[in-house]
Order: sequence, then C-alpha cells, then structure tokens
Amino acid sequence: MDRISKGWFSEIQDDLWPGQSFSLKVKEVLHAEKSQFQDIQIVETETYGRCLILDGIIQCTSRDEFSYQEMISFLPLCCHPNPQKVLIVGGGDGGVAREVVKHPLVKEVHQVEIDDRVVELSKKYLPSMACGFDSEKVKLTIGDGFEYMKQHKNEFDVIITDSSDPVGPAVNLFLESYFELLKNALKDGGIICSQAGSFWLDFDHAKKTMKGCGIHFPKVGYAVTSVPSYPCGHIGFIVASLNASRDLKEPVKKFEKSEIDALNLKYYSSEVHSAAFSLPRWVEKHFYE
Amino acid sequence: MDRISKGWFSEIQDDLWPGQSFSLKVKEVLHAEKSQFQDIQIVETETYGRCLILDGIIQCTSRDEFSYQEMISFLPLCCHPNPQKVLIVGGGDGGVAREVVKHPLVKEVHQVEIDDRVVELSKKYLPSMACGFDSEKVKLTIGDGFEYMKQHKNEFDVIITDSSDPVGPAVNLFLESYFELLKNALKDGGIICSQAGSFWLDFDHAKKTMKGCGIHFPKVGYAVTSVPSYPCGHIGFIVASLNASRDLKEPVKKFEKSEIDALNLKYYSSEVHSAAFSLPRWVEKHFYE
Repeated sequence: MDRISKGWFSEIQDDLWPGQSFSLKVKEVLHAEKSQFQDIQIVETETYGRCLILDGIIQCTSRDEFSYQEMISFLPLCCHPNPQKVLIVGGGDGGVAREVVKHPLVKEVHQVEIDDRVVELSKKYLPSMACGFDSEKVKLTIGDGFEYMKQHKNEFDVIITDSSDPVGPAVNLFLESYFELLKNALKDGGIICSQAGSFWLDFDHAKKTMKGCGIHFPKVGYAVTSVPSYPCGHIGFIVASLNASRDLKEPVKKFEKSEIDALNLKYYSSEVHSAAFSLPRWVEKHFYE
Repeated sequence: MDRISKGWFSEIQDDLWPGQSFSLKVKEVLHAEKSQFQDIQIVETETYGRCLILDGIIQCTSRDEFSYQEMISFLPLCCHPNPQKVLIVGGGDGGVAREVVKHPLVKEVHQVEIDDRVVELSKKYLPSMACGFDSEKVKLTIGDGFEYMKQHKNEFDVIITDSSDPVGPAVNLFLESYFELLKNALKDGGIICSQAGSFWLDFDHAKKTMKGCGIHFPKVGYAVTSVPSYPCGHIGFIVASLNASRDLKEPVKKFEKSEIDALNLKYYSSEVHSAAFSLPRWVEKHFYE
C-alpha cells in the first residue's frame, strides 16, 4: 500500500499501527514542505475538510478536530476549581488555544510550540483552528517546551500537552522525566492533560506512561474521545492532578447545557466528561488493578 | 484506491462513507464465495486476526469483535429485569449468541439468520464466534427475520438485531415497519437493541431510525461502543423499551466487577453501560432536543 495512491492519502505506520491504515480521499495538496523539525502537508480532502499531516500522520481534520481539541482542553480545565493560568505545550495549529480561552475563568494562556512553520501554515490554511492565536489571552512562544518549563516553576494551574505520537522527538513527552517537569511547573493542586494514544494499540506504552506519571502525580486517570480520523477512531488522554483528593471523573466546574451551547462546545459536556473516564473492563483492569 | 491492492483489503463504500476508507493488511484469503444473498470473504489479517467481510464490508475481526458482541447483547439484557427468552435476528457468525447465553437469567435463545453459508463458514473459519451455536440454549432457524416475527407474537423479552449496514436487503431493518414487528414479537416491557451505524456518518439516517422506533417504543436511546475495524472506529446501537419508565442508561441488572470477569466479559461493565449512552453534545441535541 502506498501513502499516496490514486488520489488517496493513506496513513501507514508500521511501528505505531502495523497492519492497519486509515485513508482519506484528497482533492488537492495545498502545501507540502520539510521544516526544520518535520514533514508538513496540508491537504483538502473530499469529505473531511482540510487536513494537517506531520511526518505522514494525520494531526487534525476540519470535520472532527473539535472532539479532540475540546476534550484535551475541558477535561483538565473542568477538573480545576480555578484554572486561571494555563500552559499549552505543542498545539501549533491553534485548536487547543481556541478551546482553552473559552473557559470563563481562564485569564492567561501561554503556549510553547517548537515549529513556527506549523503555526504559520495553520494561520494560512487552517484559520478555523489558528484563530485560537487571535485571543488577547494567548501568548505564543516558539521554542522547546522542556526548556520553557525548566524556566517556569510553580506557575500554572493547568498544563496541556498537545503532542504528536511517541516517535522521534515526541518520545520525550511520554517519559517519567517529562511528568516531573510538568509537576514542577504547576502550582499546588495543578492539573495536566496529555495526549496518550489508543488503548487498542500500544497498551503497554499507555500503562507505562501512566505509571511514569503516577510517580509524580497522586491522582492519574485515562479518558477517551471519539475521533474518526485517528488510528482506531479514538484517542486517549492522561489526566492527572497534584491534589490527591480530586475525583477526575467528576468535573468541579459543571456547565449547564445552555452554557455548553453558549460556549460553542460541540462535543464536551459534564456528562461526556464523566463518561470519558469509563474504560472497557479489560482496559480498566490493566490500567488500575 | 482499489479494494484489494498489494496485500491490503480496503473498505471502500462511496454511498455509506464516501472519501474515507479503513484498510487491513491481509496474510491470506481463506475463503471467498457468492452465496444466494451476498459476497462472503474470510481473510487472515496481519494484525486483526480473522476477518469476515460481507459485500466488501468488514463485519468482524477476531481482535475487536468482543466489543461489538458484548455491547449489543448486554446493553439490552441488562435493561431487562428478567430476560428469559431472547431472539437474535441476523448474527450468523454466532458472536452475539455466544454473549447472550452468558447472562445467567437467559433460558432460551432463538436466532433467525437468512444466510446459512455465513453460519457454515463461521463454524469452519471463526470457531471462537461460532461457538455461540454450541450452547443448548440456542435454537437456530435459517430464514427471514420478518417472516419469523410475523409468526411469533408476544413471545420474547429481548430482541437483538445484528444486521449489516443499511444497504440492499438490510434497509428494511431500519424502517418504522420493522420496529412495529419487533414490538409485536415482544412481551410486555420488552427491550430491543439494533445496530445503528455511526453518528459521524449518516446523522439524519440515525435520527430517522430513532424516530421510526419511537413511534412504537415509548423509550428510545442511542449508545455507542468502540470498534477500530468499523467505519469511524465505533458503532451505535438503538436500544428501546416498551416500558416507558425504564431508564436505559441505568442497568437494572448490575453485575459486580468480579461477576463481569467470571462471565469473561472484556468490554462491558455497568459503568461502561451508562457511559455508552452519554453522547457528544451536538449528537445529544440533534437526537433528543
């Protein structure tokens, strides 16, 4: 199977999801370049809108990105009683920033993205996501998240890691040492949320990541959201709190349905929040027992 | 994109999921034939085990079928206080029967499958599913589910429709008239569960099906389960009750975790049951408001 064939893009990754592939029919390749960090492609698809592809892996499509962006943002935000200051690591398309600024208690959003080309290209080709950078609350730094956090201790209420999959440089974002950095950059009672792959794929990797997280965070949970254009059609998040008595499944901030609609949230609700932490029995056993 | 190319099978359906396709790497085509009703293929895949394909659509793979079979069975069974007599329409691979007989209150399972070739080939190539037919509780009839139900009124506590997607003959299983038949074949307080596609795909079809169901059932719900080898990585079910006061989200029979494990349920639990009905805000609004 070829990555590009007869007008289709196929997501083939023998190391991450051998033997399976999701394909999207492509109308037009809008842009392709090799930045300092990665291969970047932006394509117009037949039925999924615009699609950002990094190193051959689909990052987001206009049709279903809201599920990912809303959940990686509102799961941790709503687990925190007062999430005033938020750090986003990665997230160069702007989608997470767009969601985070919606939360009425959020005052400042700091974002560190390593690849300025992703930001620039998103502004040009993915304006419905990159609009996240337009908010006055958002301060974007181009640089390395690790270095940034080393210089910002005890500062944030919530840190969201919107990374690519654990291959290449992003491997570091799944290590125990990364969770230690996160802990140190958080204020007391702080909350984190990190992309954590699919439990249908690398089970042991997810468990190992949770274990590494658990060394520094007394409360660790795993939640999922449905995203058709991701491998296995969904993606998991590690959500963790420095507050040992926090019940991650139960949002401290419960928005009414009318508020959810007013915030233009299409996926997230308090009910969806709780449900996202209910894992299939075999996963629950493997992760928690 | 071709359906079979360079050792991969690609699920291409321009009418049902245009512009997207899921592919599995194939080790060996074990069997292919055209039965009276459909094209049947059974393939050995690289990473999803054995896979049954009907008319070019993946029906189940050994790796993830349990999620579907357990949920289509235990969602309705656990919504019924005493599900002694169950009817399965379709389900020729035997996977649903395998799950239904696990429920300790189930005494009799009647199954009507139209295509005996699916049953025979499943017995030969998919024994871990077709073992469902081995139970003494199961009585299999080869025939038309519509005709069968016309002759069996007021007989069943639970009816499960394990159908293929709404193209060709299966279109009828999504019509209002089908739900009328189901109602009449049920005893008072009976429960149904039917395969109902993905809310990411044909939204209006799902809503229309729920509406048709709602004409005959006072309580109608929609639940989902994660199945990587299905389009968009998940599938929905319509669950409906003749008992207007039944809260479908709340199982009447709550199995302890130890019971779940003893029943060899890998996906279903009471928590997963409730979570399955929590729909993304935009879907909830579209379906219920």
